[in-house]
Amino acid sequence: MSSVRPPLAMTMGDPAGIGPELALKARARAAPGDPPFFVLAAPESIAAAARKLDVGTLIIETDLEGAASAFAKGLPVVPLENRASVEPGRPDPESAAATIESIKRAVAAVQNGVARALVTNPIAKSVLYASGFPFPGHTEFLGELAAKWGGPSFPVMMIWSEALAVVPVTIHIPLSEAPKALTFDLLLKTARIVDREMRARFGLAKPRLAFAGLNPHAGEGGAMGREEIDVIAPAIAALREEGIAAVGPLPADTMFHARAREGYDVALAMYHDQGLIPAKTLAFDEGVNVTLGLPFVRTSPDHGTAFDIAGKGIANPSSLIAAVRLADRLTR
Amino acid sequence: MSSVRPPLAMTMGDPAGIGPELALKARARAAPGDPPFFVLAAPESIAAAARKLDVGTLIIETDLEGAASAFAKGLPVVPLENRASVEPGRPDPESAAATIESIKRAVAAVQNGVARALVTNPIAKSVLYASGFPFPGHTEFLGELAAKWGGPSFPVMMIWSEALAVVPVTIHIPLSEAPKALTFDLLLKTARIVDREMRARFGLAKPRLAFAGLNPHAGEGGAMGREEIDVIAPAIAALREEGIAAVGPLPADTMFHARAREGYDVALAMYHDQGLIPAKTLAFDEGVNVTLGLPFVRTSPDHGTAFDIAGKGIANPSSLIAAVRLADRLTR
Repeated sequence: MSSVRPPLAMTMGDPAGIGPELALKARARAAPGDPPFFVLAAPESIAAAARKLDVGTLIIETDLEGAASAFAKGLPVVPLENRASVEPGRPDPESAAATIESIKRAVAAVQNGVARALVTNPIAKSVLYASGFPFPGHTEFLGELAAKWGGPSFPVMMIWSEALAVVPVTIHIPLSEAPKALTFDLLLKTARIVDREMRARFGLAKPRLAFAGLNPHAGEGGAMGREEIDVIAPAIAALREEGIAAVGPLPADTMFHARAREGYDVALAMYHDQGLIPAKTLAFDEGVNVTLGLPFVRTSPDHGTAFDIAGKGIANPSSLIAAVRLADRLTR
Repeated sequence: MSSVRPPLAMTMGDPAGIGPELALKARARAAPGDPPFFVLAAPESIAAAARKLDVGTLIIETDLEGAASAFAKGLPVVPLENRASVEPGRPDPESAAATIESIKRAVAAVQNGVARALVTNPIAKSVLYASGFPFPGHTEFLGELAAKWGGPSFPVMMIWSEALAVVPVTIHIPLSEAPKALTFDLLLKTARIVDREMRARFGLAKPRLAFAGLNPHAGEGGAMGREEIDVIAPAIAALREEGIAAVGPLPADTMFHARAREGYDVALAMYHDQGLIPAKTLAFDEGVNVTLGLPFVRTSPDHGTAFDIAGKGIANPSSLIAAVRLADRLTR
């Protein structure tokens, strides 16, 4: 039934990480209703992963056009031009060109309509930095590719699971810098994107956005910090003026238990751990990283390259499988 | 079987809050193995709560000596000298003297050996402030009473449930002040108390203490903040030198899921929400606030006065009941 839609484009990720193994396992465990996908990878990296595994999945080299139909028989691999490391667990800067090529070509495939969404495997920033990669991370690189494409490009990270959808408004900065980074404009810009995409992609008629406070007990009326009064509450008021169903600021510690979560569709956390702690506490294996604010859908497993267990055959594909299913759902 | 040990002393808390109702419900739901307790309260506040309830628990005015045996027949109430508000939901500064008397006399009862531990109901700091109460909160007041007693007095808050025990090293301060407040000395002093009491009170031969990092990904080697390198890691190293089983700093977002929690007995969080978010996400109704570092055991429900639902009969006594049971366990 999903064969009439284009397949999903999956990236290889760092070839020395668990990405190739996860791609094989995700194909092996694909259920009848799951969408077809192909992986843009150096075939030698997939073959290396397969040698360590016992999944019995056929690896099928194919071009983009043949990828969707090849999925019925195995894992379609669209070969890269650059070569990649074949030693799981041993990251090699020589692979950086292949890792980046995989991302670029996957985005191009979505742009050209050959694929309908992007599912990315984990990369290691330190490996890419060593070869001159100038972006702070995956998401910023995708933002740059999207900007070249000419679409909207303010990437917003959401961690999604059946239990909780949460967006950290500030992300990969020292905690001491988060209070200053949290501006009225950033809150508005982020919340508007969340509201828009929860409508457009998640199909919610009126998404309910719950803002956490920054301080303990959401500041307790200014007794423990003033950011709620000076920044967060005014931003919520402005969003409500725009017709966005924003509530808060709520004390962060009491907004993530089961009953509290029934009161909203997306939580907006003020800093990384405030959002990622409940997300990973509630759904460690099934969390999906979704990038909002791009002209295309991009999902990703909510973990890293895991070099320490790469090649051992023990990597858990649950998060990648959840990422595939969510990318499918968001592009139906 | 527990009749040979002294009962637990429970405070009234703010009489306009849910404390009196919770005390009645906790008695009504006491199971056969549960310890006897008495509440130090203005009888009129307990009577007011009982009128709104249908628990059928006998209220028995008694003196301290008769409290333990009275528990078999109902809720033993040891009357205060000060009068208290009888309007649930309407906090009244006139009640402050009674609220404070209840705490002082409960501590005295433990000091005199008439009671073996303290279980406190929630107070409202703002109500007590209005009547000149000079302490930032409950715990600091208990610290002062303990200091007068002459015992050790560095109160350390732990949130405990069957799922997770967590100690926030910094607590009720603005988030922007947490990085500066987090010193080597504070980490050592706190961890030593945690280690000592997990041995002495919780019966662990070698408690495993897991420290969270302060920054996203625990700073990622200094890329996102240096507190891990400059403060937390040196404190952990010093504690290990002392023979304390300290590990970390760990990325906070991946240390609270079920498998990760198997690796330690107590998590040390660097600031309020980092510890309270997982604690309340995992065990919202059954969390207990335990104060370590005092010469006596003190437990408390992990919620506030809830003036908004006081007198409606809908308050959930699960956390107070868990507090009673934990106080019992820690003083066996």
